[in-house]
Amino acid sequence: MAKIILSKVSTKAPEKIDKSETKQETENLLKELAELQKVMYAERKHSLLVILQGMDASGKDGVIREVFKAINPAGINVYSFKKPTELEMAHDFLWRVHQQAPQKGYIQIFNRSHYEDVLIQRVHKWIDQDTVKRRFEHINHFEKILESNSTVVLKFFMHVSPEKQLERLEERRTKVDEMFKYNPNDMEERKLWSDYEKAYEDVLEECNQVPWEIIPTDNNWYKEYLIAKKCVEVMKGLKMKYPTIEK
Amino acid sequence: MAKIILSKVSTKAPEKIDKSETKQETENLLKELAELQKVMYAERKHSLLVILQGMDASGKDGVIREVFKAINPAGINVYSFKKPTELEMAHDFLWRVHQQAPQKGYIQIFNRSHYEDVLIQRVHKWIDQDTVKRRFEHINHFEKILESNSTVVLKFFMHVSPEKQLERLEERRTKVDEMFKYNPNDMEERKLWSDYEKAYEDVLEECNQVPWEIIPTDNNWYKEYLIAKKCVEVMKGLKMKYPTIEK
Repeated sequence: MAKIILSKVSTKAPEKIDKSETKQETENLLKELAELQKVMYAERKHSLLVILQGMDASGKDGVIREVFKAINPAGINVYSFKKPTELEMAHDFLWRVHQQAPQKGYIQIFNRSHYEDVLIQRVHKWIDQDTVKRRFEHINHFEKILESNSTVVLKFFMHVSPEKQLERLEERRTKVDEMFKYNPNDMEERKLWSDYEKAYEDVLEECNQVPWEIIPTDNNWYKEYLIAKKCVEVMKGLKMKYPTIEK
Repeated sequence: MAKIILSKVSTKAPEKIDKSETKQETENLLKELAELQKVMYAERKHSLLVILQGMDASGKDGVIREVFKAINPAGINVYSFKKPTELEMAHDFLWRVHQQAPQKGYIQIFNRSHYEDVLIQRVHKWIDQDTVKRRFEHINHFEKILESNSTVVLKFFMHVSPEKQLERLEERRTKVDEMFKYNPNDMEERKLWSDYEKAYEDVLEECNQVPWEIIPTDNNWYKEYLIAKKCVEVMKGLKMKYPTIEK
């Protein structure tokens, strides 16, 4: 497999795609998604795990808010992975992640995930290369365990350009409804862009047994469309049915 | 690797071994084990997971009581795996197991374990052969994840003879301090002896990447000696040290 070079992959919506048409299509997809989740919840045979990974300000929060807003909250959970606690650090890196795996009938969203353990930890050299390799393997096996338990695992790499990131980080300093996200450290992490890019390229290549989707996220309407479309697609593929009362 | 035939492996202490000498040696080992666990707790670099698997009345409870009695309860946990709850059943079979993995500094005992998911479930045909094979793989990977997090995984197969089992099950009907363990279902399960034996033989062969120890358990004093000896051996091998204050 040829190695992915992220700087050569577009972060923008293709020009030929019409924005307002696409937004309309997204609306339809969201309705469909809500219907599909109702059947999933009723049938209790499958679950969906959506993993959102990307640089700071790549639009993860927006996806959660905009793509999954139509779904009955009883059937969906969001978990944001933060800096591990002391208790979590005293276990293997997948310990806290496995606990958040979805039960049958549910959609689970991971805002960041176990991939942080081969991204931030690697970029800052908190772990050595051998550990990185071993973790790639562990992640591949872990995702297979979830898959064999009828969990569909969708992994979205939120692909943002450095320019768009800067624009969004600046907004966090100036717009009142964005300020709560402001973290001076983000500007520091931004300086490590090419290290992160390299770490992501390895992840996209080495942890692709459950395949990644690369989502261009400079245009919010386009990323929302792509993610909604993919979710509807895989959920439709499950051929779920409402259980009926036997007569 | 030649297939293990359990009916050809002795369940008894070798005749040449002296009982009272061995018991004395076990006492010394238990003291050593308690000391080793103190260092483990202080150092917080390693953990020990002891998995006890075996037929009913193969002596699992006795091991927990007799081999680990000298250890400071602050540094050891015992978890008994029972029939999965509804919530546990709605997740993959390793979900509940992973949660009970030891944190660094601790000894964790599993009284039964994830192996039930390829034993009782298989013998009663609640799962098909493909699932069994996939679970073998998942178990192997899962144990590797624990090992790469500095957890020593010790797996003891408690090897009891059908005669000894019967004797012990009978005691549960007659001895007051044993009656709480009485379960009429045990006599039913006993009828499936050869199915269980076959399932165990496969487990011992297919899930041996983290190796099994076969422990003859007809003689309690001998099983206690073997397990204490093994635990001391592996813990010594960790070359643990009390952390000191830097001057």
